[in-house]
Amino acid sequence: MPLINRLAIVGVGLIGGSLARILREKNEVGEVVGIGRGKDNLERAVELGVIDRYCHDPREGVAGADMVFLATPVCTIADLVGEIAPALAPGCVVTDGGSVKGEIVSACEPLMPAGRHFIGGHPIAGTEKSGVEASFAELYQGRRCIITPTERSDRGALETVVRMWELTGSEVVLMDVAKHDRVVAAISHLPHMVAYSLVNAVGEYDGCDENILKYSAGGFRDFTRIASSDPVMWRDIALMNRGSVLEMMDFFAGYYAELRELVAQGDGEALERFFARSKQYRDGLVAGTRS
Amino acid sequence: MPLINRLAIVGVGLIGGSLARILREKNEVGEVVGIGRGKDNLERAVELGVIDRYCHDPREGVAGADMVFLATPVCTIADLVGEIAPALAPGCVVTDGGSVKGEIVSACEPLMPAGRHFIGGHPIAGTEKSGVEASFAELYQGRRCIITPTERSDRGALETVVRMWELTGSEVVLMDVAKHDRVVAAISHLPHMVAYSLVNAVGEYDGCDENILKYSAGGFRDFTRIASSDPVMWRDIALMNRGSVLEMMDFFAGYYAELRELVAQGDGEALERFFARSKQYRDGLVAGTRS
Repeated sequence: MPLINRLAIVGVGLIGGSLARILREKNEVGEVVGIGRGKDNLERAVELGVIDRYCHDPREGVAGADMVFLATPVCTIADLVGEIAPALAPGCVVTDGGSVKGEIVSACEPLMPAGRHFIGGHPIAGTEKSGVEASFAELYQGRRCIITPTERSDRGALETVVRMWELTGSEVVLMDVAKHDRVVAAISHLPHMVAYSLVNAVGEYDGCDENILKYSAGGFRDFTRIASSDPVMWRDIALMNRGSVLEMMDFFAGYYAELRELVAQGDGEALERFFARSKQYRDGLVAGTRS
Repeated sequence: MPLINRLAIVGVGLIGGSLARILREKNEVGEVVGIGRGKDNLERAVELGVIDRYCHDPREGVAGADMVFLATPVCTIADLVGEIAPALAPGCVVTDGGSVKGEIVSACEPLMPAGRHFIGGHPIAGTEKSGVEASFAELYQGRRCIITPTERSDRGALETVVRMWELTGSEVVLMDVAKHDRVVAAISHLPHMVAYSLVNAVGEYDGCDENILKYSAGGFRDFTRIASSDPVMWRDIALMNRGSVLEMMDFFAGYYAELRELVAQGDGEALERFFARSKQYRDGLVAGTRS
């Protein structure tokens, strides 16, 4: 018997499509219903065998589902949950893949009717591609998936969501909502803020008589790749995880100011220590890489 | 007739070895003498055919050379030039590959005896490997090489250095010393300062009850790769290019502070514009990539 009888996925792209693929491959889902606006993408998803059928109306799409997965932009999730809530079947579990959890979980939990459950989730996986064509069953293999239950979470619903992500090959980690938002602010949101600032600074530096970006080599391009990320998505993340992003931005600014002072003072010993500490953390990271 | 009769290379590693390889391949050098401390590396360089012979004493090694290439750490170059200056043959051209030019050029030019010439250079190339084993003839192909002549530079010496780098397949760019130091501060030194600060901040963040680096995924690792660079080398670069590094660090700090305020104010429109501007610069960079 499959874990899920009917899975409704809102947003059948890389994230939603890959989840459907692996669950189907393992025969752990009876039927998959895709929900979205774009007809072409949904028809392609049917052709590819990622979903069985689709519809554009979220309420209609979630009817009779025992699991609903929301893979839409972070700023849309709470509204979407409000819209589908009245149409959810008894016992239905709703979960999401948004990279911010505090605002989403606190908004969505109270929207759930009795006997329906919201559990926040965040699979830490992705590629630079998007759309259902880019989805593949192995996307989550060996990656971490953070699940953020609260005191209000239904134990059975939580277990089902954990089991679903374990089936994808993910390493599931349960984490407090606030801690999740700090962790991702540190390892993902902060680096994006830094990269965006860096590229703007170098791109607009006016101390030479020409744009100096043209002298950049491979190192600069690698370092700044994340500054090519979608501005709208990052606007939403910065707004929705504002508190943690600000906390981490200020925390970074302290280290940066310290380094600036060491450079200004020409303190070679302290500079070497500063760089060596960083190298140690970074090398430890690589040593700890899981394939 | 080859461009160079006898080339003396101090520091036969990736940078020095690759220069020797391409000049030999093109029959543009008569004899290559390697100079360094490590016997094993130099013997390996002979075995690999990168150099013809070697010696440990720089003065002995440069005798009779018409071109000397210094591929040692930036902080050693001025002392080295002081040491070899009395042993240089008439007409000899000395050049280097250091990534900082102001301090090096201003220190080395006055050290040259009459009829011997120093020309500063900086081939923008490299890999994560080092040592003569890692050297290869194509390292400089399609890369930029910045040459920084001054008013005192001998025109013939400059032409020879330019020609040598053109033979490697590099695109040679002549640049004012101060401009060079600003350009590399922006596209290379600043990103390193930012990456080192970021990894230290995230590595030492104490707002969760555990080290959060372990949650980092591929994106963080890619972004912070340069924080694994050699602390001693970067200490020297920060010290030697202090003025430009500080200028660029402060310039970046202005953009970062601006972004921090946009996040604090929750100004979605301005955030999207900030990110979109950055994405535009970054995407333009990739579109302009030379293969």
